[in-house]
Amino acid sequence: MITRMSSLFLRTLREDPADAEVPSHKLLVRAGYVRRVAPGGYSWLPLGMRVLRKVEAIVREEMDAMGAQEIQFPALLPREPYEATNRWTEYGPNLFRLKDRKGADYLLGPTHEELFTLTVKGEYSSYKDYPVILYQIQTKYRDEARPRAGILRGREFVMKDSYSFDLDDEGLAGSYQLHRDAYIKTFDRLGLEYVIVKATSGAMGGSASEEFLAVAASGEDTYVRSTGSDYAANVEAVVTPAPPEQSIEDKPEAQVHHTPNTPTIETLVDFLNNAELDRKFTAADTLKNVLVKTRQPGAKDWTLLGVGVPGDREVDMKRLEASLEPAEVALLEDKDFAANPFLVKGYIGPGALAANGVRYLVDPRIVRGTAWVTGADKADHHVVDLVCGRDFTPDGTIEAAEVREGDPAPDGKGTLVAARGIEIGHIFQLGRKYADAFGLDALGPDSKPIRITMGSYGIGVSRAVAVVAEQYHDDKGLIWPRNVSPFDLHIVMAGKDDSIREYAEKLAGELDEAGVTVLLDDRKASPGVKFADAELIGVPTIVVIGRGLANGLVEVKDRKSGERVEVPVAEVVEHLKALVRS
Amino acid sequence: MITRMSSLFLRTLREDPADAEVPSHKLLVRAGYVRRVAPGGYSWLPLGMRVLRKVEAIVREEMDAMGAQEIQFPALLPREPYEATNRWTEYGPNLFRLKDRKGADYLLGPTHEELFTLTVKGEYSSYKDYPVILYQIQTKYRDEARPRAGILRGREFVMKDSYSFDLDDEGLAGSYQLHRDAYIKTFDRLGLEYVIVKATSGAMGGSASEEFLAVAASGEDTYVRSTGSDYAANVEAVVTPAPPEQSIEDKPEAQVHHTPNTPTIETLVDFLNNAELDRKFTAADTLKNVLVKTRQPGAKDWTLLGVGVPGDREVDMKRLEASLEPAEVALLEDKDFAANPFLVKGYIGPGALAANGVRYLVDPRIVRGTAWVTGADKADHHVVDLVCGRDFTPDGTIEAAEVREGDPAPDGKGTLVAARGIEIGHIFQLGRKYADAFGLDALGPDSKPIRITMGSYGIGVSRAVAVVAEQYHDDKGLIWPRNVSPFDLHIVMAGKDDSIREYAEKLAGELDEAGVTVLLDDRKASPGVKFADAELIGVPTIVVIGRGLANGLVEVKDRKSGERVEVPVAEVVEHLKALVRS
Repeated sequence: MITRMSSLFLRTLREDPADAEVPSHKLLVRAGYVRRVAPGGYSWLPLGMRVLRKVEAIVREEMDAMGAQEIQFPALLPREPYEATNRWTEYGPNLFRLKDRKGADYLLGPTHEELFTLTVKGEYSSYKDYPVILYQIQTKYRDEARPRAGILRGREFVMKDSYSFDLDDEGLAGSYQLHRDAYIKTFDRLGLEYVIVKATSGAMGGSASEEFLAVAASGEDTYVRSTGSDYAANVEAVVTPAPPEQSIEDKPEAQVHHTPNTPTIETLVDFLNNAELDRKFTAADTLKNVLVKTRQPGAKDWTLLGVGVPGDREVDMKRLEASLEPAEVALLEDKDFAANPFLVKGYIGPGALAANGVRYLVDPRIVRGTAWVTGADKADHHVVDLVCGRDFTPDGTIEAAEVREGDPAPDGKGTLVAARGIEIGHIFQLGRKYADAFGLDALGPDSKPIRITMGSYGIGVSRAVAVVAEQYHDDKGLIWPRNVSPFDLHIVMAGKDDSIREYAEKLAGELDEAGVTVLLDDRKASPGVKFADAELIGVPTIVVIGRGLANGLVEVKDRKSGERVEVPVAEVVEHLKALVRS
Repeated sequence: MITRMSSLFLRTLREDPADAEVPSHKLLVRAGYVRRVAPGGYSWLPLGMRVLRKVEAIVREEMDAMGAQEIQFPALLPREPYEATNRWTEYGPNLFRLKDRKGADYLLGPTHEELFTLTVKGEYSSYKDYPVILYQIQTKYRDEARPRAGILRGREFVMKDSYSFDLDDEGLAGSYQLHRDAYIKTFDRLGLEYVIVKATSGAMGGSASEEFLAVAASGEDTYVRSTGSDYAANVEAVVTPAPPEQSIEDKPEAQVHHTPNTPTIETLVDFLNNAELDRKFTAADTLKNVLVKTRQPGAKDWTLLGVGVPGDREVDMKRLEASLEPAEVALLEDKDFAANPFLVKGYIGPGALAANGVRYLVDPRIVRGTAWVTGADKADHHVVDLVCGRDFTPDGTIEAAEVREGDPAPDGKGTLVAARGIEIGHIFQLGRKYADAFGLDALGPDSKPIRITMGSYGIGVSRAVAVVAEQYHDDKGLIWPRNVSPFDLHIVMAGKDDSIREYAEKLAGELDEAGVTVLLDDRKASPGVKFADAELIGVPTIVVIGRGLANGLVEVKDRKSGERVEVPVAEVVEHLKALVRS
């Protein structure tokens, strides 16, 4: 069926929407793909629907091809399953909650681990039933604090979420790899430029979680990549390479110094360098001890934790939180200091922590044999040459220090540089968390129960539309890759002659018959208006039926390069068919 | 891609679910198409997804074919537009309401008139833009008081809703007719047996609203049809044929009788028939006056209304309400009688109503010249031979009396019989209600605004799956029509020989190549289990690869008739291809 601009429900806009900052938001609104209905809520107009359906179809095909089976849950879900996993509470204000007419609690599903787990439990019982991978392409809801950038971060969005159910870790690794491969195929077909970044530091196993980030300057996610390899990771997932251990024997003895008025690392270093000591210091020679408190899920009480990092780096709370997950982390309040008088604010050292049984974790750079300037647990006093493994022994290491550009890459190749991206996919080895919560077991061949292990995998389907737009546009408008373009061809009638109209209709009809999707600009507008709209809408090939027709020629323009070729009428159908199938 | 039962996420059940009453609910659960997640909330398992998608595709094709354009709104909608039309309040407890993290009011869309109207207003401005028909296929939410019958009446369901926008009534009638034709094609393709019933009494124009009801004994909707024509209507929409007017001259004078202890029609008739009067009476000779109060939308005060019906019929509140829409209707309370002492409970006559300015509407059978026994506005007194047009003059007629089997059909052909159905579609000429609420105008050729007139049209997409199941099953299971069957063929390996497995795989592969969708039962289960599952699942053609294979024969069984034919291996692919395309 030919789509005619004269009746298409579409009005392009000349101005960017006032609330739009990123190119995809501006262009998808201006070109009439989406319209804002509420904060983070958008309607899809006919052009947008076509792109969304194409993205959906590609995602579905790749999921089906890997043997995943499509099902669909309600979006309106009862509270109980989410209560069982504590997510009813954990989601906090990000969850849309509501009551039904009887006062029962419901939520709008942000993700469906609970329901999938319960459903598999309801249907399957024997080890012979496994493995299974289920997925849905569904509208999801998250009450984002700052919905932004149009459909890039909405409160209602379309997501493909899938879940794998395996009998053992090896099976899970296989299901994870299937998804990884399918995601690569999917995003390649969408034409996206992306990186796969490690999303956890590896505490749960090296490849437990990876994110697919589309490269985009407007991206909210920061990640680092190496200048010397294809290493890429979320900042939270960067593993700090530990330097070699050093000899302890040749280190001078630790000495306490009176260091008045040195509340900061900077003032401390200045003080020491002005003192008559045998050498000079930098911030990197100091050991900063940051006290926090942590609480395990479901626990009532907080526990103190000391975190030691080189003084030239800040503690990155996001990295610290990721390292301590699922525990909560909070900074100390005045009352905490009051309750623990051994903590001398600004002068905390490893000594008081050890003496008072406070767990102490340090940055991986603080290895045995390294000597540090650090707090002496006494106001206005620091200790110099406190040697790790001699004068203090940390309880372990922790990834908490900030990651900086120029840091060595964890794989030893090159250094790290920061980049920005947009999360378009996430694959995650969940393990047995949900199976434990709901008692999902398979009866094994020996009649003993086998606890199932799960993976959880997501693709932001509606977001992907915006991300493609983010990567494929210029200052005139969108430039869709063929795979997701709303139409294969945009035919413009550029002229008022009946012959132009007749030929354009005939050409559109022939192409339509051949299965080529055609947007036909049959409006009475000027050629200039039509060309501008065609460039804004972004169909990759624009066919102009104009003055050349009198000479038996049709102009075929490539939206991206701007190149035009004149094709004889006799050849144009075959030319275009070949083009759209290229 | 061949779907294999050995890995299909499917477990059939032997028992009906405890909460299931209707066949579609029982069978769709037992055959593994859907699972209950919450009251009125169901998940779609792989078989169910396939049928749902087929129904969706048919609906979409017919909508596209009529020139409607697909768009999609969020389901989570802000309160304001629904406030503007008062539906935020009017929907009462049927609406799911919630607040976002900032405390703003939202709802889960039950239907989208407001948003469509606002969107068209946002995009279109000139009369040249019209007409336009937009639709979406979307998940909708209604907090039903009694969700029941599985996906037949859920609280979350898939609906196609469309809206037409026209410049004038003639245009609206055209858009309405386009929908009517498209719905007929859609429901015919779904294989449904249905009737099209008038849904309003015609106060807004003869064809202002029609419902498509699938014929089903389990249906919630009662309608009437004629024994003598194809007339069918909702009970609310039945128009009572008026008898001919009668001569007034030959009627005896009205006489008031003391009728003690006659609070009911029955006691009144008995009393009169025992009194020494010149003739006998039946309930049909009496005129029952029922007092109600009505209130227009947005009004504060109630107004009294007298409704007169023949004494042998009850007032049908649903019909009364439909006749008075959009006004609210309520029965009188004691305080209303106290405030209006001229209303003598049990003895109300037309006289007091006229004397006190109470509007009085009567059943269409109460025509000029008819004589009635009715209340004399005085306790224990009735009047006999009160003649319409002589002794009282109603303010008009109203459809309020109950409709009974055996009543003459409004078209004069045959009599009415009651039947039950399930609403699967509704087409409705909305008129200018929403355009008025939001000021949707087109600028006319004379630069004057033209108020747009709208139609609203719905198809219950997920419900249609249940309705097909309701009409296509037997005691062994489902029997899908080819157009909506989850697969074209169900191939059963009935035997353990390698030759059977190999041939079945080869046959399935060849058919799959040819575009035939195949469900292959490759499980290790017994043939009996496989046959029972095949009959439960309901693919219309079952292909059995079993003992006959040794003789070069394959059994092809028709699920509905049970007929089996043996087809030589050499012919089976062509035979099956022809069958599924029949």
